[in-house]
Amino acid sequence: MKLLHHIPTAEDIRVTHEFIRPMIHRTPVLTCRSIDEMAGAQLFFKCENFQKVGAFKMRGASSAALRLSDEEKERGLATHSSGNHAQAVALSARLLGIPAYIVMPDTSPAIKKAATKGYGAEVILCENTLAARESTLEKVVARTGATFIHPYNDYNVIAGQATAAKELIEDTEHLGCIIAPIGGGGLMSGTALSARYFSPGTLAYGAEPEAVDDAYRSFKSGAMQENTSIDTIADGLRTNLGEKTFDIIRRELEDIFTVSEPAIVAAMRLVWERMKIVIEPSCAVPLAAVLANPGVFEGKKVGVILTGGNVDLGRLPF
Amino acid sequence: MKLLHHIPTAEDIRVTHEFIRPMIHRTPVLTCRSIDEMAGAQLFFKCENFQKVGAFKMRGASSAALRLSDEEKERGLATHSSGNHAQAVALSARLLGIPAYIVMPDTSPAIKKAATKGYGAEVILCENTLAARESTLEKVVARTGATFIHPYNDYNVIAGQATAAKELIEDTEHLGCIIAPIGGGGLMSGTALSARYFSPGTLAYGAEPEAVDDAYRSFKSGAMQENTSIDTIADGLRTNLGEKTFDIIRRELEDIFTVSEPAIVAAMRLVWERMKIVIEPSCAVPLAAVLANPGVFEGKKVGVILTGGNVDLGRLPF
Repeated sequence: MKLLHHIPTAEDIRVTHEFIRPMIHRTPVLTCRSIDEMAGAQLFFKCENFQKVGAFKMRGASSAALRLSDEEKERGLATHSSGNHAQAVALSARLLGIPAYIVMPDTSPAIKKAATKGYGAEVILCENTLAARESTLEKVVARTGATFIHPYNDYNVIAGQATAAKELIEDTEHLGCIIAPIGGGGLMSGTALSARYFSPGTLAYGAEPEAVDDAYRSFKSGAMQENTSIDTIADGLRTNLGEKTFDIIRRELEDIFTVSEPAIVAAMRLVWERMKIVIEPSCAVPLAAVLANPGVFEGKKVGVILTGGNVDLGRLPF
Repeated sequence: MKLLHHIPTAEDIRVTHEFIRPMIHRTPVLTCRSIDEMAGAQLFFKCENFQKVGAFKMRGASSAALRLSDEEKERGLATHSSGNHAQAVALSARLLGIPAYIVMPDTSPAIKKAATKGYGAEVILCENTLAARESTLEKVVARTGATFIHPYNDYNVIAGQATAAKELIEDTEHLGCIIAPIGGGGLMSGTALSARYFSPGTLAYGAEPEAVDDAYRSFKSGAMQENTSIDTIADGLRTNLGEKTFDIIRRELEDIFTVSEPAIVAAMRLVWERMKIVIEPSCAVPLAAVLANPGVFEGKKVGVILTGGNVDLGRLPF
């Protein structure tokens, strides 16, 4: 595979899927009759909470890692993240037998630092500001020659994230629409591209917490907006869009819905109680949007990407 | 199918499985590499938390209900339970289009009463003592002519519960052993019978909380013992064995292990965190036993029955 410098084509996503297959799980698609009754729709949940490292991020990280040259691979992977992307980069490196350097805020939970080290990565701590993360990462890259794997604003990562929707489409017939949460927009971009390529006619929707609605405002205004707060329980969605992801989202999405914090917690609880699976708050945002917009989704077959299951059980919202 | 008045044979269990198939889910068998590493064994988890009503109880209740005569069916099903068996009897009746009468302690959580009524059952409240439950049930049966479905001490129920292990054996090759929790012993009896019939050489083990170790003491002493306390988080396992289940367990089990309360909570948390699935405390008891007894399980292929996923998310132990 070669590094992508363009919006991934259908063929790019197909090739990506073949290459990353040994590094990911093909996750199951679950259904739940009682949630269907509440939604008045048929929902097909793509369970990326069962993915390696517990989140879809493994797809994008492995896609980007596999595209590096042998020489680049040898020097290793680097990123800054306190979340699922950190572990995905660390595990990708481990599976390829190459080094990983992960910059994490020193305020990250001990369990996340330990998990990342557990995958064999070198964890470099820094202050909890974006500036500190970026400058620390720069130094790490200068020292090691490792390649920075961006969590979302990268066509190689987007091609990897697209494979979740590709599998969902392959495993489900005639989806009327497909919905994913929007943080940095990598998953959403890939999801929309896969819908267009592999199931034309399937509409792509995005869902976002009201509190961090940069994608909603960007989509509606046509110009990139930034979040003014990060005050949401959906900690995976606090990020702003990148130019690459905004460009795809602007053109490929049918619409974006925002949902309230109580609606996110209620949808999360519903999935835990009815489906008996553990999902993280970010993951519940699309279901909250489906339940809040019956006019859009009623009577449809709806694909819902459940993005991850990494929650701190000591700090649950119920 | 006819009512069973003997220990279910292999053929009885096969026939039961065919007949209840439309009333149950064939639940998946999941594996988890990180838990395998901790156990030093290969574990195959039979996920009855994904069963209808969220627990294996649906197998036994539907097996017993289907065996009634048309006339008996018309008069309906009755039981006393505040747990998963109540909902299983209620749903079995609903699927057969017959009435269900469920006696529940008035102290039962509102959510459980509502869930049982939601399946169309008539809920009759009584005081929270065994005597009150039994006398209230007697009156209900006298008034309605409904048939009492015992939660475990009934060969028809045992034949139903046996189908979980039968499926696990069909979906997994060469299990060295299989382990289930013991409450009243219905699931354990069925599990041990299926192991003997459908996978000779697979050893059957039981697991019990230390605090309610009646089965352990009964097994070791050869005479039925009773629990002196019900002080365990594993609320599904507080029951004493019945004569029918003790008779099977005494003859079919290789051994019974007891585990501490902290070990139960730790095993439950491990499954939530690593497997991203919701299990109830009773469900974690066999895994706790496997982790505590490496001398027995290391290097083996171990089938573990995960019994249910009905937990009150507002009262988690972590």
